[in-house]
Amino acid sequence: MTLYAEVEEALAERIGVEWQIGDRLPSEEELVRQFGVSRITVRRAIQNLAARGLVDVRHGSGTFVAAPQITQPLTALTGFVEDMHALGLEASAEVVSVQTVAAARHVASELDVPLGSPVTFIERVRRAEGRAISFDQTYLVPEVGRRIAEDDLEDTPIFTLLEDKYSLPLVEATYRLRACLADADIAAALDVSVGDAVFRIERTSLTTGGRPVDYEVLHYRGDAVTFETQLHRHPGTP
Amino acid sequence: MTLYAEVEEALAERIGVEWQIGDRLPSEEELVRQFGVSRITVRRAIQNLAARGLVDVRHGSGTFVAAPQITQPLTALTGFVEDMHALGLEASAEVVSVQTVAAARHVASELDVPLGSPVTFIERVRRAEGRAISFDQTYLVPEVGRRIAEDDLEDTPIFTLLEDKYSLPLVEATYRLRACLADADIAAALDVSVGDAVFRIERTSLTTGGRPVDYEVLHYRGDAVTFETQLHRHPGTP
Repeated sequence: MTLYAEVEEALAERIGVEWQIGDRLPSEEELVRQFGVSRITVRRAIQNLAARGLVDVRHGSGTFVAAPQITQPLTALTGFVEDMHALGLEASAEVVSVQTVAAARHVASELDVPLGSPVTFIERVRRAEGRAISFDQTYLVPEVGRRIAEDDLEDTPIFTLLEDKYSLPLVEATYRLRACLADADIAAALDVSVGDAVFRIERTSLTTGGRPVDYEVLHYRGDAVTFETQLHRHPGTP
Repeated sequence: MTLYAEVEEALAERIGVEWQIGDRLPSEEELVRQFGVSRITVRRAIQNLAARGLVDVRHGSGTFVAAPQITQPLTALTGFVEDMHALGLEASAEVVSVQTVAAARHVASELDVPLGSPVTFIERVRRAEGRAISFDQTYLVPEVGRRIAEDDLEDTPIFTLLEDKYSLPLVEATYRLRACLADADIAAALDVSVGDAVFRIERTSLTTGGRPVDYEVLHYRGDAVTFETQLHRHPGTP
């Protein structure tokens, strides 16, 4: 093994044993002394631990044991509560705002409503075991949105309301994923720092007949979630 | 329409006409004057343009017209050159390093080789129309890796070599996606700043018999690529 791989493994073995989630690892200088290796070797080892999701490097303040990543399948149209329950995690929602807004161009286009027409706009922070994981901005077509705005959104997922209460079965959705940096609003909602990494997922869900009902912009904490899927070389062939 | 949506649309219409890719938009102060609106309205409009991928906000230096996003399907196991050609873009590769390294724990586990055994490690910058899009770190099982290390990797994609030259058809791959920040190495390779957003995709490709041959860590520029997929509510049902 190369030297940095040895240091990497030695540190990995101490994580969860000697150091718990949120604990700060010894400084680079201290690790240079402990292992008797160069600073470049220590840095490479820590880079690899960060890439493996075991530590967070916060520039200026040190290296910390990371909270475990949630590995979430990206294989079916599912809602946050369904995703967390499938992983055995308790899910909760905090409603930040519910309002009627005029559909901007991309919202109007996704929901197939006239530009500037009223749509329901809901902002929620979604939590797993109390930890903020996703900040969701949801735009709903007016006919069902106006009614959902009156529902208890802390207790009932929007997917459940759409399907069970309003008889709008969801059929499929387009997902568009980007990697972005948290601005001030997103950072505050997700309890991270401005400039931290976030997944930005636009999702437009269709009911029967290909009719869009729900356009969402989901912001997932980059340090909290890994999306996993299995892709075939030649889909559709046996 | 709300005021910020009006400002947003007015700015969106000038992008690509009055302002070209890389041009700096007028300052917040100037836009406040031009539109006769509050600073908060200008900020909200610019946030939305950034979320739509039309502008990049670079803290401390201003707001710039963004290069168009590459929207890439995430629906089949495909290589970079295949992806770019499907979009009508010219692809090229710059080989940064080719070496034999000892398999660290996660590499050994993904490639199903003994910990510390030699694997081929290749680093490449992948470009579309000359623009750096992805920084790829590829680990290959030794039997084929040693031979691929001698091939012309600027000219021929590794997928093509594996399948056509070495008769190792690819069948499927696990993709694991994370949103991260560029460290110094990744920033240099992708021609972005340290702390910019990147997709980090781990991909382990299997040949027939479920045998892993190629484990990659791909870093895509967050400002350059959107991944798109279509997911069904109940996959497998008609």
